[in-house]
Amino acid sequence: MNGQNYTVWEKQQQAKGVDVAWVRERIKAFKVETPSWGYGDSGTRFKVFKQTGVPRNLYEKLDDAAQVHKFTGICPAVAIHIPWDKTDDYGKIIGYAAELGLKIGAVNPNLFQGEEYKFGSLCHVDAKVRQKALDHVLECIEIAKTVNSGIISLWLADGTNYPGQGDFRERKHYLEQALQTVYASLTGDMRLLIEYKVFEPAFYHTDIADWGMSFTLAGKLGEKAQVLVDLGHHSPGVNVEHIVAFLLDEHKIGGFHFNNRKYADDDLIVGTINPYELFLIFNELVAGELDPATAATAAGIAYMIDQSHCIEPKVPAMIRSVLNIQTAHAKALLVNRAALRQARQKNDVLAAENIVREAFETEVKPLLAGIREELGLAPDPMTAYLQSGYEEQKVGRGRDGQGWE
Amino acid sequence: MNGQNYTVWEKQQQAKGVDVAWVRERIKAFKVETPSWGYGDSGTRFKVFKQTGVPRNLYEKLDDAAQVHKFTGICPAVAIHIPWDKTDDYGKIIGYAAELGLKIGAVNPNLFQGEEYKFGSLCHVDAKVRQKALDHVLECIEIAKTVNSGIISLWLADGTNYPGQGDFRERKHYLEQALQTVYASLTGDMRLLIEYKVFEPAFYHTDIADWGMSFTLAGKLGEKAQVLVDLGHHSPGVNVEHIVAFLLDEHKIGGFHFNNRKYADDDLIVGTINPYELFLIFNELVAGELDPATAATAAGIAYMIDQSHCIEPKVPAMIRSVLNIQTAHAKALLVNRAALRQARQKNDVLAAENIVREAFETEVKPLLAGIREELGLAPDPMTAYLQSGYEEQKVGRGRDGQGWE
Amino acid sequence: MNGQNYTVWEKQQQAKGVDVAWVRERIKAFKVETPSWGYGDSGTRFKVFKQTGVPRNLYEKLDDAAQVHKFTGICPAVAIHIPWDKTDDYGKIIGYAAELGLKIGAVNPNLFQGEEYKFGSLCHVDAKVRQKALDHVLECIEIAKTVNSGIISLWLADGTNYPGQGDFRERKHYLEQALQTVYASLTGDMRLLIEYKVFEPAFYHTDIADWGMSFTLAGKLGEKAQVLVDLGHHSPGVNVEHIVAFLLDEHKIGGFHFNNRKYADDDLIVGTINPYELFLIFNELVAGELDPATAATAAGIAYMIDQSHCIEPKVPAMIRSVLNIQTAHAKALLVNRAALRQARQKNDVLAAENIVREAFETEVKPLLAGIREELGLAPDPMTAYLQSGYEEQKVGRGRDGQGWE
Amino acid sequence: MNGQNYTVWEKQQQAKGVDVAWVRERIKAFKVETPSWGYGDSGTRFKVFKQTGVPRNLYEKLDDAAQVHKFTGICPAVAIHIPWDKTDDYGKIIGYAAELGLKIGAVNPNLFQGEEYKFGSLCHVDAKVRQKALDHVLECIEIAKTVNSGIISLWLADGTNYPGQGDFRERKHYLEQALQTVYASLTGDMRLLIEYKVFEPAFYHTDIADWGMSFTLAGKLGEKAQVLVDLGHHSPGVNVEHIVAFLLDEHKIGGFHFNNRKYADDDLIVGTINPYELFLIFNELVAGELDPATAATAAGIAYMIDQSHCIEPKVPAMIRSVLNIQTAHAKALLVNRAALRQARQKNDVLAAENIVREAFETEVKPLLAGIREELGLAPDPMTAYLQSGYEEQKVGRGRDGQGWE
Repeated sequence: MNGQNYTVWEKQQQAKGVDVAWVRERIKAFKVETPSWGYGDSGTRFKVFKQTGVPRNLYEKLDDAAQVHKFTGICPAVAIHIPWDKTDDYGKIIGYAAELGLKIGAVNPNLFQGEEYKFGSLCHVDAKVRQKALDHVLECIEIAKTVNSGIISLWLADGTNYPGQGDFRERKHYLEQALQTVYASLTGDMRLLIEYKVFEPAFYHTDIADWGMSFTLAGKLGEKAQVLVDLGHHSPGVNVEHIVAFLLDEHKIGGFHFNNRKYADDDLIVGTINPYELFLIFNELVAGELDPATAATAAGIAYMIDQSHCIEPKVPAMIRSVLNIQTAHAKALLVNRAALRQARQKNDVLAAENIVREAFETEVKPLLAGIREELGLAPDPMTAYLQSGYEEQKVGRGRDGQGWE
Repeated sequence: MNGQNYTVWEKQQQAKGVDVAWVRERIKAFKVETPSWGYGDSGTRFKVFKQTGVPRNLYEKLDDAAQVHKFTGICPAVAIHIPWDKTDDYGKIIGYAAELGLKIGAVNPNLFQGEEYKFGSLCHVDAKVRQKALDHVLECIEIAKTVNSGIISLWLADGTNYPGQGDFRERKHYLEQALQTVYASLTGDMRLLIEYKVFEPAFYHTDIADWGMSFTLAGKLGEKAQVLVDLGHHSPGVNVEHIVAFLLDEHKIGGFHFNNRKYADDDLIVGTINPYELFLIFNELVAGELDPATAATAAGIAYMIDQSHCIEPKVPAMIRSVLNIQTAHAKALLVNRAALRQARQKNDVLAAENIVREAFETEVKPLLAGIREELGLAPDPMTAYLQSGYEEQKVGRGRDGQGWE
Repeated sequence: MNGQNYTVWEKQQQAKGVDVAWVRERIKAFKVETPSWGYGDSGTRFKVFKQTGVPRNLYEKLDDAAQVHKFTGICPAVAIHIPWDKTDDYGKIIGYAAELGLKIGAVNPNLFQGEEYKFGSLCHVDAKVRQKALDHVLECIEIAKTVNSGIISLWLADGTNYPGQGDFRERKHYLEQALQTVYASLTGDMRLLIEYKVFEPAFYHTDIADWGMSFTLAGKLGEKAQVLVDLGHHSPGVNVEHIVAFLLDEHKIGGFHFNNRKYADDDLIVGTINPYELFLIFNELVAGELDPATAATAAGIAYMIDQSHCIEPKVPAMIRSVLNIQTAHAKALLVNRAALRQARQKNDVLAAENIVREAFETEVKPLLAGIREELGLAPDPMTAYLQSGYEEQKVGRGRDGQGWE
Repeated sequence: MNGQNYTVWEKQQQAKGVDVAWVRERIKAFKVETPSWGYGDSGTRFKVFKQTGVPRNLYEKLDDAAQVHKFTGICPAVAIHIPWDKTDDYGKIIGYAAELGLKIGAVNPNLFQGEEYKFGSLCHVDAKVRQKALDHVLECIEIAKTVNSGIISLWLADGTNYPGQGDFRERKHYLEQALQTVYASLTGDMRLLIEYKVFEPAFYHTDIADWGMSFTLAGKLGEKAQVLVDLGHHSPGVNVEHIVAFLLDEHKIGGFHFNNRKYADDDLIVGTINPYELFLIFNELVAGELDPATAATAAGIAYMIDQSHCIEPKVPAMIRSVLNIQTAHAKALLVNRAALRQARQKNDVLAAENIVREAFETEVKPLLAGIREELGLAPDPMTAYLQSGYEEQKVGRGRDGQGWE
């Protein structure tokens, strides 16, 4: 039945001037990485509700990630978190992943759970703690090389809880020194993506609080250092798509952590609270891909999910996230950019706004279903997964308290 | 030396028309309750840094609370949290507390850590879960009677994480039904204080999201139900002192949970981020005490601390909180209300603003030190505590993982 | 061509269990009121950009409003603002409106532009100013009776700019007194809708700052007083759809001022910044209409637009607003409520979320186009209006500095 | 009487290790610039309440500014706004100012009130509009040279109101091109200070939205381009003092626009809503002055007031602003930096926090009064001004609608 729907849909789009073949090609080329820790338990400071069948180790997380890839077709890479996913034999991991059709994606150091990080890691006043944190990041770079990952994704929880507690500039200097060493250890095409966050777990100041700070640090390091944008790490009202466009223009955006929020870093499924914002971000990314001046930077962006599923089952939550991202991307491809350019040139505010919103309002289910069928996938990945029996089978696993907490 | 300082200070205040004797009397009468859970470990979803010497049970928490009272002189009551502080023999607890010069304050039910509360407690779709939650609150009322506490402090973590997840109105009905039963179980002078919170741990909606919802629920129940204001539970920008004044005027403010925040429910030491806001709240409370129409309501307000000290030592953090509250209260007593009324009547904006701010800018250290000396306390409670050796002695305690998490 | 599209669409919806006939009927019954002042110039404190062809009086505003109704078919009523729209002969206005197929909607008093309102109107410390403000509201009630309008829409700009400036509770008492008189003047089915706003033009406190304050005031007055929700009048992050559901359940929601915002009271075209929020609000309203317990309240809600079009042409901006509202309403009608109820009962978070979001993602253009054709309207109202020549014709008007200020 | 108070005060401070002589010297050296437009009428989009005696031209504004300087002693410079303060004879202005003991400070171009700026100025799609805006800035540079001002203070109102309306990156390119020309026109020690603002008057995106964008633009230009921080131009919760420290460390902070806010860009009197934040900003600035690595940058910072006094009399409002700034600066000088450094080195959070807060809580009235007396000023500038009769005398002026608009 989708075939018929799709034929109608395609005709409508062509009538609007959409190059449907190009749209289909771009959709097929789009990939998003899922995080190993997204398959484990997570929660809030008040409670971590343990789920049944949670993966006990990286192998089982890869099993779960493989399901997401199996049904969506666009998630071949899995980000890992060290030491949560530390192992003695990364070769075995690579092999196991390969059997599942997967590879290892970004490597994420953990600089917030060691007892010594109570007052900071790379920004700590004590040189010994800073060295320990630095060594951990360097270890992660080595692991990245071992697992053929090109990306170190650095989130720093460092900050202070009270006015006066820390010396902002001294901490900045410590950070800059450490990052120089980190940067010098990158080889080949490896990149260092520097994340920022306005608050939490620190409640007065965060050492890398906004994109401007990530950008300044990355700028001093060099081309291999870029900014990572997590959608939930901004103050209320901040225009994220504008930041994305600005960073694209500066060739300094390196990746995304996708999720959604209504209040703070709520880490909800991407596209569930404000789907239009997600679409508008993709609208900038597609424009950036089409512009020769930014195409290379846009092509290098690592699309990654980073969410915390507190109450919903992990694998379906991840599938939903992937589908919502794919949907937003597909809609952004439908924007009639020639018409948009014309409307902007005339300052026809209402026409320009309408062109963008209309693409968002266009249903892309027939399109995505058709592409999936072409790729041998079920047209509705969620239903197919839920009917596959994997959820029930997973329950058989034991428990070992893995996860976010 | 303080004596001399104080004499100068007193003359200055009298010159401004301050009734110093009345101010001193009000300061002496002011008490604030500390929470048993504030002495245990707490943290963020990323990490709970365990401190040494953390109390292992309610007895040890009372020991710590007694220190706060010993050095500040204004914290004779300790709020408890059930089941964290549950015990077989509350009589023994009362006796132990009495030996320390303490009594048990508000009783706080816990409706967020049971596995069955994953999707809510009193608002859960399943009648069995609702009944369990209700039974727990009723149990807390019985405990309150046993420990001679007059206050049930109800914070509901209920809410949803996604649009569509829950039926707002159905959940409201469940809540109203449960609260009717709770209210019917109150005896004598007992009061039910209903807390609200804009978000966290729920990230899309909270069933009691703002003061208006608490107020509506409390209004339907009757006089014994009132609103509890936690300073960290509002959206950015919300004018908390206005809400306090409004609730006072409606005779529906029953208590405070003091803390401070810069971003969300950061639960920092009260008065450390925005001390002027704290003062402005007390400015409304003092005005409410002086107005016959609101004096009774104001007199009944339960002043309580609810903070989460993630990185700072617990007992000194509590002492600091108490001192900051006492300071804000003392400054609010210095506002020249006759002059303020005159300025307001003339719409002399700058004069009115100045009268209030000037009281805030007045140093009250000599005053408070003098009062403490008069009461046989050290003039500087923090220094006295730190020199007492209690912090070091506490370290000898073992550990049992008590606390917030 | 739409016919074919619609046939496909209808089959899809029926397959999902949607009662398409009922949906069509509800869409046809839905009306939204446009504001006379939305056709005049408006701007920011920095600049009001004057547009050509702006209406010079209420007659010309009605001309413009008639265009919006002509092309959308759902805007038969026009809200007026006194004294901006004050006239000597309301009978003539009613007659002129009737010729255009229009009637007069809500009457809006203006309590913020008189020089005497510098420090407040109904909350002013000076009884003479309060009386003047009260007289103006009473005058508006008389005007409402004259023009057969059932609604007084009261927005109070009162507030203070500095701590200490005003006495919160005294101002509240003045307001309550005035509202009692206002309420007593309502006759028949007239209703008083009380708006709230968190800030602006007052920057420290607003006398009616949130829904809780409107609700409390309305509750004391009686059944004819209800709360008016303006979508841009909340603090960041506030869950507006939850407030809507809560007020519905209390039978106290009386109307909406539709617009959109990203930051503060930006007064942008509704549905252009966060269309999902708009849909979620309608999702609650449709649920409220279907529930016998709230159906009467829901049926009585006055849907009104209140925007400030600073840079875009007025009539098309209004048409766009109306279309976006109609679209959100139509999508909300597609929610499969039986399935949603089942998913909620099972706490199937992902299924419930999906049911709601899926309705939002459904394209309703074929549906709306079909209904318009059935009603003798052009399927695409915006294009039809722009091709009608009215915009160009309007330019011929002179200017007299009408508008929002 | 202050003499006695001061003696007591000085002894207390010396006992705490404060170098009082150095503190006094720093206070005497501190200056803050007032804005010519701060003496004219201003308001909100809803209403500009006209005040009596408002200055009708730059001469009268200088008269008012001279009063502020006369009573505070620290406001010798006055910022001007072109074309509001445009004149045919700047030599005459300089002479008149000199007679009053004043000089002209920063020159502020106006790129938001021309009709042609409806869709932007330096970022407009039309090259002719961009050129006009550029010409205006170049004209302002020439005026600055004429009036011996070293600072061009650039605030850009450019932005868009709707998603899709503008091409973020194209607008950025236009801006960068224009700024290159502007920068090339600076001579000698002139500096270009680039302001940022999160929103208003644009409501979807602002072309220079945050410090990171100002910083990036300034960085590409060179040393003479720096960032200007307006305290009201941030999203809720943003840690401004952290940004100040970061920019200091990068030698890129060039100036401040002081004011205060609770919600958005409320433009209230500085220090009236959150005095602790103001103090914490000065705490970073004093630390920056004491650090050889940042001393030169800190010394070059232009301290300027930019407020909008909607309901309060202009000259007293400006005096209050100046006094609050001076107070915050004086308190920041009292921070015991040696002790603070020690506490930070030990991660003694509570001690570090206390050192900073304690300085804030210290009353500096005796100190400031003493310094004023030494300088031949009245100890209480506000009272002295109000008693001077100038307010009453000002009323005699006519009116010509000057001001903020």
